[in-house]
Amino acid sequence: MTLVADTIRNGVDTEKLFATLDLIRARPELARFQFRATNRWIDGSHNRSTIKGFYAAGGEDTTRGEAFVLDAGEPAILLGSDTGANPAEYLLHALAACLTTSIVYVAAARKVELTSVESTLTGEMDVRGALGVDEEPRNGFERIGVSFRVTGDAAAEKLREVVRRAAKRSAVYDMVTNGVPVTVDVATD
Amino acid sequence: MTLVADTIRNGVDTEKLFATLDLIRARPELARFQFRATNRWIDGSHNRSTIKGFYAAGGEDTTRGEAFVLDAGEPAILLGSDTGANPAEYLLHALAACLTTSIVYVAAARKVELTSVESTLTGEMDVRGALGVDEEPRNGFERIGVSFRVTGDAAAEKLREVVRRAAKRSAVYDMVTNGVPVTVDVATD
Repeated sequence: MTLVADTIRNGVDTEKLFATLDLIRARPELARFQFRATNRWIDGSHNRSTIKGFYAAGGEDTTRGEAFVLDAGEPAILLGSDTGANPAEYLLHALAACLTTSIVYVAAARKVELTSVESTLTGEMDVRGALGVDEEPRNGFERIGVSFRVTGDAAAEKLREVVRRAAKRSAVYDMVTNGVPVTVDVATD
Repeated sequence: MTLVADTIRNGVDTEKLFATLDLIRARPELARFQFRATNRWIDGSHNRSTIKGFYAAGGEDTTRGEAFVLDAGEPAILLGSDTGANPAEYLLHALAACLTTSIVYVAAARKVELTSVESTLTGEMDVRGALGVDEEPRNGFERIGVSFRVTGDAAAEKLREVVRRAAKRSAVYDMVTNGVPVTVDVATD
């Protein structure tokens, strides 16, 4: 009983975590993943993404029974009717979620038992850019601030080191801070 | 009746759209917005963001009655139990949603009546980076592909021009392609 319980830390099966790392070290071709989203416009600023299938570890993953359905929108001041969080808010959520999961996994690997991880993210934007009113402000956030509060059974310095290591390994933190090449194709029939 | 109907195109109130642009041109200080997300870890890769308040046009916006609640997770192969789309998938959704809304708004302003906007996004990742197994692959997507299918009452070349203009104005497209400075603060008590 104790042995089984010991492998689970912060809700992460550390035995499976280390086995996964060993497997990918031995067979790096299994590290190729492709994630996907399909989106459909509904009306005005309301559109909806469906997320289900992905490619992982040498094949199409079929373990997900149902798709995740995400609705986007805009508030009234941006000409919408609040049919969902807006796209820039979804980006903040993506960043918060990725950093948090990275913190939890890094802590699990380093034998740190966490009791709480909370964060507040803020993004500052001059909407003249996105609205095309002025060429000077950029379209997106000028900067994003992330404030974490992390508690657990380790000293403050160790908890801070877990957060630093998590940021160094987070997929979305990498993408948001460094950018990603994006290609856009258009069909019209 | 006809006059009222004419101001709505693609579900966007174009009269309000042009009035907003004129107002922001006249009073650029109203263009300062701040969006926010607060996130809380639940267990393992399961965490949840709450999104409600934001600052816009000179004050705190209070028009949203309820918060948007977004759950993130990971599939089994990434040590989760599919409690939500994963953070990288949320980033794809943010990008799809922002480009789509930009297409719809640009089309409305240019008197193009759209009949459909659909997209599929793919992101390619070598998970050795995020898992810390190898220093060479980056943590995030190496590249993102966006395939749009857009139909409406304009010629193919005009529809393509709407998509080009939308990408040039999209907040999330800007952030994902160019990156954003992110600061991370940590409190441990």
